[in-house]
Amino acid sequence: MGSTFGRAFRVTTWGESHGPALGCVIDGCPPLLPLSEADIQIELDRRRPGQSRLTTSRKEPDRVEILSGLFEGKTTGSSLALLVRNEDARSKDYERIEDVFRPSHADYTQEVKYGIRNWKGGGRASARETVARVAAGAVARKLLTLDHGIEIVGYVHRIRDIAGDVDPDGVARADVEASPVRCPDPAASAAMVEAIDAVRAEGDSLGGVVACVVRGVPAGWGEPVFGKLDADLAAGMLSIPAAKGFEVGSGFEGTIGKGSEHNDPFIIRDGAIHTAANRSGGIQGGISNGESLLLRVAFKPTSTIRKPQQTVTRDGREVTMEARGRHDPCVLPRAVPIVEAMAALVLADHYLRHRGQTGRAGPAF
Amino acid sequence: MGSTFGRAFRVTTWGESHGPALGCVIDGCPPLLPLSEADIQIELDRRRPGQSRLTTSRKEPDRVEILSGLFEGKTTGSSLALLVRNEDARSKDYERIEDVFRPSHADYTQEVKYGIRNWKGGGRASARETVARVAAGAVARKLLTLDHGIEIVGYVHRIRDIAGDVDPDGVARADVEASPVRCPDPAASAAMVEAIDAVRAEGDSLGGVVACVVRGVPAGWGEPVFGKLDADLAAGMLSIPAAKGFEVGSGFEGTIGKGSEHNDPFIIRDGAIHTAANRSGGIQGGISNGESLLLRVAFKPTSTIRKPQQTVTRDGREVTMEARGRHDPCVLPRAVPIVEAMAALVLADHYLRHRGQTGRAGPAF
Amino acid sequence: MGSTFGRAFRVTTWGESHGPALGCVIDGCPPLLPLSEADIQIELDRRRPGQSRLTTSRKEPDRVEILSGLFEGKTTGSSLALLVRNEDARSKDYERIEDVFRPSHADYTQEVKYGIRNWKGGGRASARETVARVAAGAVARKLLTLDHGIEIVGYVHRIRDIAGDVDPDGVARADVEASPVRCPDPAASAAMVEAIDAVRAEGDSLGGVVACVVRGVPAGWGEPVFGKLDADLAAGMLSIPAAKGFEVGSGFEGTIGKGSEHNDPFIIRDGAIHTAANRSGGIQGGISNGESLLLRVAFKPTSTIRKPQQTVTRDGREVTMEARGRHDPCVLPRAVPIVEAMAALVLADHYLRHRGQTGRAGPAF
Amino acid sequence: MGSTFGRAFRVTTWGESHGPALGCVIDGCPPLLPLSEADIQIELDRRRPGQSRLTTSRKEPDRVEILSGLFEGKTTGSSLALLVRNEDARSKDYERIEDVFRPSHADYTQEVKYGIRNWKGGGRASARETVARVAAGAVARKLLTLDHGIEIVGYVHRIRDIAGDVDPDGVARADVEASPVRCPDPAASAAMVEAIDAVRAEGDSLGGVVACVVRGVPAGWGEPVFGKLDADLAAGMLSIPAAKGFEVGSGFEGTIGKGSEHNDPFIIRDGAIHTAANRSGGIQGGISNGESLLLRVAFKPTSTIRKPQQTVTRDGREVTMEARGRHDPCVLPRAVPIVEAMAALVLADHYLRHRGQTGRAGPAF
Repeated sequence: MGSTFGRAFRVTTWGESHGPALGCVIDGCPPLLPLSEADIQIELDRRRPGQSRLTTSRKEPDRVEILSGLFEGKTTGSSLALLVRNEDARSKDYERIEDVFRPSHADYTQEVKYGIRNWKGGGRASARETVARVAAGAVARKLLTLDHGIEIVGYVHRIRDIAGDVDPDGVARADVEASPVRCPDPAASAAMVEAIDAVRAEGDSLGGVVACVVRGVPAGWGEPVFGKLDADLAAGMLSIPAAKGFEVGSGFEGTIGKGSEHNDPFIIRDGAIHTAANRSGGIQGGISNGESLLLRVAFKPTSTIRKPQQTVTRDGREVTMEARGRHDPCVLPRAVPIVEAMAALVLADHYLRHRGQTGRAGPAF
Repeated sequence: MGSTFGRAFRVTTWGESHGPALGCVIDGCPPLLPLSEADIQIELDRRRPGQSRLTTSRKEPDRVEILSGLFEGKTTGSSLALLVRNEDARSKDYERIEDVFRPSHADYTQEVKYGIRNWKGGGRASARETVARVAAGAVARKLLTLDHGIEIVGYVHRIRDIAGDVDPDGVARADVEASPVRCPDPAASAAMVEAIDAVRAEGDSLGGVVACVVRGVPAGWGEPVFGKLDADLAAGMLSIPAAKGFEVGSGFEGTIGKGSEHNDPFIIRDGAIHTAANRSGGIQGGISNGESLLLRVAFKPTSTIRKPQQTVTRDGREVTMEARGRHDPCVLPRAVPIVEAMAALVLADHYLRHRGQTGRAGPAF
Repeated sequence: MGSTFGRAFRVTTWGESHGPALGCVIDGCPPLLPLSEADIQIELDRRRPGQSRLTTSRKEPDRVEILSGLFEGKTTGSSLALLVRNEDARSKDYERIEDVFRPSHADYTQEVKYGIRNWKGGGRASARETVARVAAGAVARKLLTLDHGIEIVGYVHRIRDIAGDVDPDGVARADVEASPVRCPDPAASAAMVEAIDAVRAEGDSLGGVVACVVRGVPAGWGEPVFGKLDADLAAGMLSIPAAKGFEVGSGFEGTIGKGSEHNDPFIIRDGAIHTAANRSGGIQGGISNGESLLLRVAFKPTSTIRKPQQTVTRDGREVTMEARGRHDPCVLPRAVPIVEAMAALVLADHYLRHRGQTGRAGPAF
Repeated sequence: MGSTFGRAFRVTTWGESHGPALGCVIDGCPPLLPLSEADIQIELDRRRPGQSRLTTSRKEPDRVEILSGLFEGKTTGSSLALLVRNEDARSKDYERIEDVFRPSHADYTQEVKYGIRNWKGGGRASARETVARVAAGAVARKLLTLDHGIEIVGYVHRIRDIAGDVDPDGVARADVEASPVRCPDPAASAAMVEAIDAVRAEGDSLGGVVACVVRGVPAGWGEPVFGKLDADLAAGMLSIPAAKGFEVGSGFEGTIGKGSEHNDPFIIRDGAIHTAANRSGGIQGGISNGESLLLRVAFKPTSTIRKPQQTVTRDGREVTMEARGRHDPCVLPRAVPIVEAMAALVLADHYLRHRGQTGRAGPAF
């Protein structure tokens, strides 16, 4: 279970890293949306490893095929099936870990839960599963862009203790893509590259924080109680492998000040209601207020490291293990398109939910 | 929409702070669970304001009635309806804000979304809505306690920059309740009381962080992809009014170290598999691993303050407003039972989901 | 479980016939719908027993209270809670059946499923549960009437083997209400009254078929695969106590002819596309085609009869039982508003689903 | 939307008849179920056309591939992706109908709903979509067989006015498969064959009724209000293309008798509680009672016929059309495995829902 995300724009994913393919079905995508495989491929290429020396050397061409739901270049309102074949899966790299639970991985919990485990590559817990999310997110993004001109820009905010200095209002995707670690602050980017190179050399790994800004969301999306826009964003982000935290707007830091310092005063700008600051992160009472959405996601250091680690076997013996395989010493750069994809999925879902409930795509007045 | 939480243990809430009553319907509670109104009342009393000078002086007796689903003291498997009547609602306190959008409240977004707004008390965005959650959470807690001996202990971790020093493994509910601010570290508690008194005097407000530990969750609950236990906890916590962030285990801070420092080594203790540390916060790959769940929720400073604030009216005039009403200068102490309730709801839901999918209440081996 | 109906217009019901009250929560009703308790009461009064000598003599005033979701006479987009108090519940009538499974009732299956059973009045399996559906249906009907001028007219088509001759295109609600058995064919109505009087005298019961026509549904509602409009109508109707069958359009009888006789030719009438006949019952491929919806529901003879019957006790003894209580010898007349309510709930749900998915309330061209 | 069926055992289908492939994703299948492609292929082969001269001459080898969720011959608890490639799709047969709405087809309603239509083969409304359901149903059937020894046997009960005389308690799958029309009454079978041959010759089509018996369902499955087992079966059956009616147990005919004739007396047989008759069709109050499930589904005569028919074009001209393509003059024989598949999907879903809610696979006592 748990393979479906969303209620009105629904994505169901499937596939393991060492099976023949993985993919997803999108149900609820509105009809008449122009869509091609190229729209999706561009995002998959960003997620793909092997883009620089900073990521795993696995070759994953990750070509997407759209198998249904499209007619003469437009969606038909039918379910869309997206498929990506697996290649270059070296199961033998995993053979030695068949009976060993890798620390801070899902090996142990999956085995406990199901009594069976596809130990070749981690099964559904593999970060490779996110291929399907990124593909689905690209469709959601197309819908949001065409219908509302929404822009979603994610970037690496911090790796280890090296934080970039980035203005979320101004940051552009090109700035992000110009950095090998997807940090649009050049100085921080250089320091991050260095830090990653260092831990790769020692067989260790790093974590950090991805930030994401969404510009152009109309006021009115989200629902007041359990369907809050930020609650659904939190669920989407915490569903990404290695995510350990989520914050919106001022987040944890915003708890330090007083109410009088934290509240966002309403003002009139260009004849429209705006907030003077954006500590709310574009969401008030769970509903978008027309300002940019601002959110951050914490990713722990990659669990798979080459250094020897203490662990136990399935039959209860304590052992020391050393991982092989080819793994990212730092997932943050590749997590950026995944965070963006989850943001797109949540927003497309709430766009359609809002439209169904109110008959309006945007604000009521 | 958005009034239902959970999939197998489903709660649907209703009611506004200034209507005749509010309540919820629980669908999916297993049969034969011993349950009485007293089980629920004890939690509502903890949420209730007026328990000390630190909270709002509104009188809300908040007596719960169970209207269905119970027979001779046990649940029948039918939907449970819980109802709490409103009393002492002073709508006139709100009259002056009919046409003014309170900063960082949901006034503006609700009006934009729906084109109508119950401005008496904030409608569904009022924190009073959490009465229904706490009531439902008490039922979930009873189920978890009786079937698995699960203990859920929340506490105030930090108010402003005053952080308590608390051992999550040892903290007991009695320690928490002994503090007027629900911080079981006596020194920090005293400092927090002082800080709250100070902001109340100046008509301002404070925020902070609530921590929650859940002990006794069997390994195996949660689902690997989108139904991750931590993703659902994040959604539950971010659905609480004023919540701005969520973290599990090592959270944001855990992103600073290296993988070799962060991974939780598996060990054998008393013949069973455990982790030597608990930076995973009891969840690995979205599934519980048998260790204590550790989570934290950030709450911004209360939006309603007495200090004058800049805002706009419905018809687009910039004005200065001063709130009246009776409001908490710091919601943290009362947020503790709400955080616990949301944790209980998520866990009860996953308990039943796990049982349905695997036919087992706990681990497979 | 199973207490929620619908996906976009969601109704969750609760309550037993011998508890303090029963009711429902509606989540997803659009904002700004004018609504009052009178809109609902008019439908509850039609469902209420004691309207003529043909129905049970129980007194159930069934006054509805709207507890939330309304502000100054309009819906706010928040969840609506409707409550109806129980009165005149004579539990002692049921005492003798505590340990006996009434034939063709849900006594046995509820006990087997849950291991506990509210034997006072049948718990959730009591037809009294339909009070909540009729109340919710009245809200759905208001929405459909105001937004689309949709008319829903149910009537008794047949009791035992006495079938009315009714033109579904012309039948009006007033014609239906003029008959004590809700059969708008006066001759059939008189014969039905006679037949019911006869079985009441002998302590027996009758079944029959309720028909329902829905006029004014725009083309385009419903979804192609599992969310077919007729599939959801079938689920709604079969969820009514005592329902044993459902058909749409030509139904079972329509299987006799050939395709060339059965197909509905398309024609142009008044410049618009219509079908020359309506054997499709207004639905093609699961989607409304703009013609009237035509459906029928079979109801078995009431299970509770005064005649002695063979059955078994909880502890496995074969016994002969004679029911007391006050029961309808024929539920058909009172089933009419329930069938209409379920039709309204399904249509309101698909109206909003269609609107969300396509951004249009009606046809695309 | 509407491409997902079930809540605990969830199937999401995708694909059009003239695209590259179609398939489904099953989420919620329990782990450790032995499963192979052969288990699924056997059911697909029964649905496949070209098995006799009575069905369409299209060649559809319909080989299934399992792309995920399986490990060393057993399910892992992860989502299962099933894929079947399309072959021999002759789009040009459809070209002439691009601008014509075929009578009693979904051409018009799909175009109205979505403003776009995959006119090559009918898109999602094509009966070819049922390939995915039959594949998913085979997995459900395997689960039901292994865990409970449940047997599902469907058969053609009637074609046109030729009804078979079949004992549902005794009928075996081999008897059904021995008949080219899947009617296990040899005399009726021969007459049906003749009737179908006759209409094929004249370019017309026939409808009828499929019956289905399910043996071995434990008492206790199903939910009391909206999640009734028969309500979900009705939804499943009415979601099959060309279905126009559903009945359970005594169905429409059972409405003729009196309650005293219709009620199923409880008796003790072999020390267990049973009913003396089975007019309830194995379901009472929406919950299985341990007797065989008995249900029937009405299918209208195939809409596609070779005879000339009156219809209209997209641009509103009245025309006479003659279909080409290769179509079944009677879908009943091929509908049998589809009805069985939908029954299996509903039962697997309720099996897991029951297990989750009560912690038991079967009865409580």
